[in-house]
Amino acid sequence: MNLHESPCLRWQLARRPAGAIDAGDLALIEYRPGPLAPDHVRVRNIYLSLDPTQRIWMSDREQYLPPIEVGQAMRGTTLGVVVESRSDRLQPGDLVIAGLAGWETLTDAPAKAVSRVRRTPGVPLTASMSVLGNTGLTAWAGMVRVGQVKSGDTVVVSAAAGAVGSIAGQIAKRHGARVVGIAGGEAKCRWLTEELGFDAAIDYRNEDVGQALDRHCPDGIDLDFENVGGAIMNAVFERMNNFGRMVLCGLISSYEKDGPAAGPTDFSRILMRRLRVEGFIVIDHLSHAKEAMAELAPWVQSGQLRWKDHVVPGLENAVDAMQLLFSGRNEGKLIVGISPEPTADEAGA
Amino acid sequence: MNLHESPCLRWQLARRPAGAIDAGDLALIEYRPGPLAPDHVRVRNIYLSLDPTQRIWMSDREQYLPPIEVGQAMRGTTLGVVVESRSDRLQPGDLVIAGLAGWETLTDAPAKAVSRVRRTPGVPLTASMSVLGNTGLTAWAGMVRVGQVKSGDTVVVSAAAGAVGSIAGQIAKRHGARVVGIAGGEAKCRWLTEELGFDAAIDYRNEDVGQALDRHCPDGIDLDFENVGGAIMNAVFERMNNFGRMVLCGLISSYEKDGPAAGPTDFSRILMRRLRVEGFIVIDHLSHAKEAMAELAPWVQSGQLRWKDHVVPGLENAVDAMQLLFSGRNEGKLIVGISPEPTADEAGA
Repeated sequence: MNLHESPCLRWQLARRPAGAIDAGDLALIEYRPGPLAPDHVRVRNIYLSLDPTQRIWMSDREQYLPPIEVGQAMRGTTLGVVVESRSDRLQPGDLVIAGLAGWETLTDAPAKAVSRVRRTPGVPLTASMSVLGNTGLTAWAGMVRVGQVKSGDTVVVSAAAGAVGSIAGQIAKRHGARVVGIAGGEAKCRWLTEELGFDAAIDYRNEDVGQALDRHCPDGIDLDFENVGGAIMNAVFERMNNFGRMVLCGLISSYEKDGPAAGPTDFSRILMRRLRVEGFIVIDHLSHAKEAMAELAPWVQSGQLRWKDHVVPGLENAVDAMQLLFSGRNEGKLIVGISPEPTADEAGA
Repeated sequence: MNLHESPCLRWQLARRPAGAIDAGDLALIEYRPGPLAPDHVRVRNIYLSLDPTQRIWMSDREQYLPPIEVGQAMRGTTLGVVVESRSDRLQPGDLVIAGLAGWETLTDAPAKAVSRVRRTPGVPLTASMSVLGNTGLTAWAGMVRVGQVKSGDTVVVSAAAGAVGSIAGQIAKRHGARVVGIAGGEAKCRWLTEELGFDAAIDYRNEDVGQALDRHCPDGIDLDFENVGGAIMNAVFERMNNFGRMVLCGLISSYEKDGPAAGPTDFSRILMRRLRVEGFIVIDHLSHAKEAMAELAPWVQSGQLRWKDHVVPGLENAVDAMQLLFSGRNEGKLIVGISPEPTADEAGA
């Protein structure tokens, strides 16, 4: 495979989306990489992680990283194989995660900006982008470090069938909490209770969330792992117990809207009930990845922790895939397949 | 003084206030205590603490204690002298604080519900209701325990010339923070900067708070000690740094209003800037009073920590005094003088 001679493909931001992402908001362009810079590696991307937060980066709004500028490459985490190295740290054939790469076939990155991935026996490689990657770390950091989940807590997880939510809920279960998930649709709710061990699931498309919370959380809620925001968050907020924790992992209901995101209706409850509302972003918890994986990996390998990777093949389908995410039609961690996983022959090549 | 034979006086809630407290919302009634119950003490109240939170108790709204019912005594903390005891723990002549007593001249309370007060040499007795009492504990718990103030922080305190705010700001200063206070009026602002050592003060009556914050906090805000809520809080919120802490001690701007209290305009900043917003109530921190006083008392005795007690004499003036509090016309900790402090002759009597 001579990547220098065949053109590479990359999605770039063509214009800022107004509301839901439209096909015209992104453009697939060809590019040809120049010579590799010193201390850099060239990575053939195999998988691209799609995450709700990427919609934030497309808007010129308050956010935790600089927004992507129009004309710039779409930003995303990729898993790939090193095909050329100008660093002692990595060799061709090494599998790596490139944290803030592009939606692209070939990435040049400083060697120190990528991290080596080792296959976990019996676990597909895609797990390194989901349960054993940043998705798992996000769930663990939010539930354990920020939320400080403890045995006996009543925990509510919104977007509970999503990549992060489904893992977060299972982590809470394994820490001895009672866990109620909120998800869209009967099939997702059944998955939560029948396969993942959630104590209850609320189908927000077909139930009044407030009434269902009253039924499933008769003693109130101690910990909210919030992925959604808006009216669903407010229904949870109103039922928080004294000293409850609201962990803001995501507010997906606001990502497609311009303008500020509404908070709970009655802010004074934070005072009256002595709540702690805390936002977090996974990039601040990367130094705890080892600790998180030490807890998650054995559960994954033993089958006690379940997850789904939803791989959409073809970089050209990335925009369609992103639309799945915002309509809730994905099943588990959404990943775009860019190129084949290396075969045994390619290792070290 | 034969308290059994002269009638006692007590304020009770006559109707729920609509907005600001009106004279007709409270009624001063006479009562005659019956025989003292076993394990109880009878306390002649000397001072009554007036606090913004009492306005919350008058409303039938979400709150941290049961609201005062119409026809019930107004609730408040008093400092008094034991005049009769049916408990081994306390003797007549002992000075005590009765945590949830009434706005009344004579209080019967379980001996275990009151706590002994010892005079601090060189410090007026009223300090036991302010800087060396729950006011000081509130400021300390919020700034140190909840806010985790640290050297180098930029701290903003709203209602900074108030009883709690003025102490909270000085505690932050002594922990090495830069402190900006927000208060109403030039005289209060001068007091903060010239006498209490605040680095800057913003007069919200005569300045645009947002512009003034930009000027005084060019590197953003790390810790907000919030006493006010509403637009002032929002101006601070918009300038919070990543990983900032918003400690909700009070939301006085909402206490006179019916209906929910608005939060910050853009709730999603809590996520984007990884803020921690946490409410607290002093009653949850009583077990740390000793630790707080060990820090505050030496500062008070050495004159390094300043405070004002604003004593309004006469239980009959309690409602007028409460109105001072909500119009910001009090100067420091508002206390109603109910009866004289005991003389040396009365000690042990």
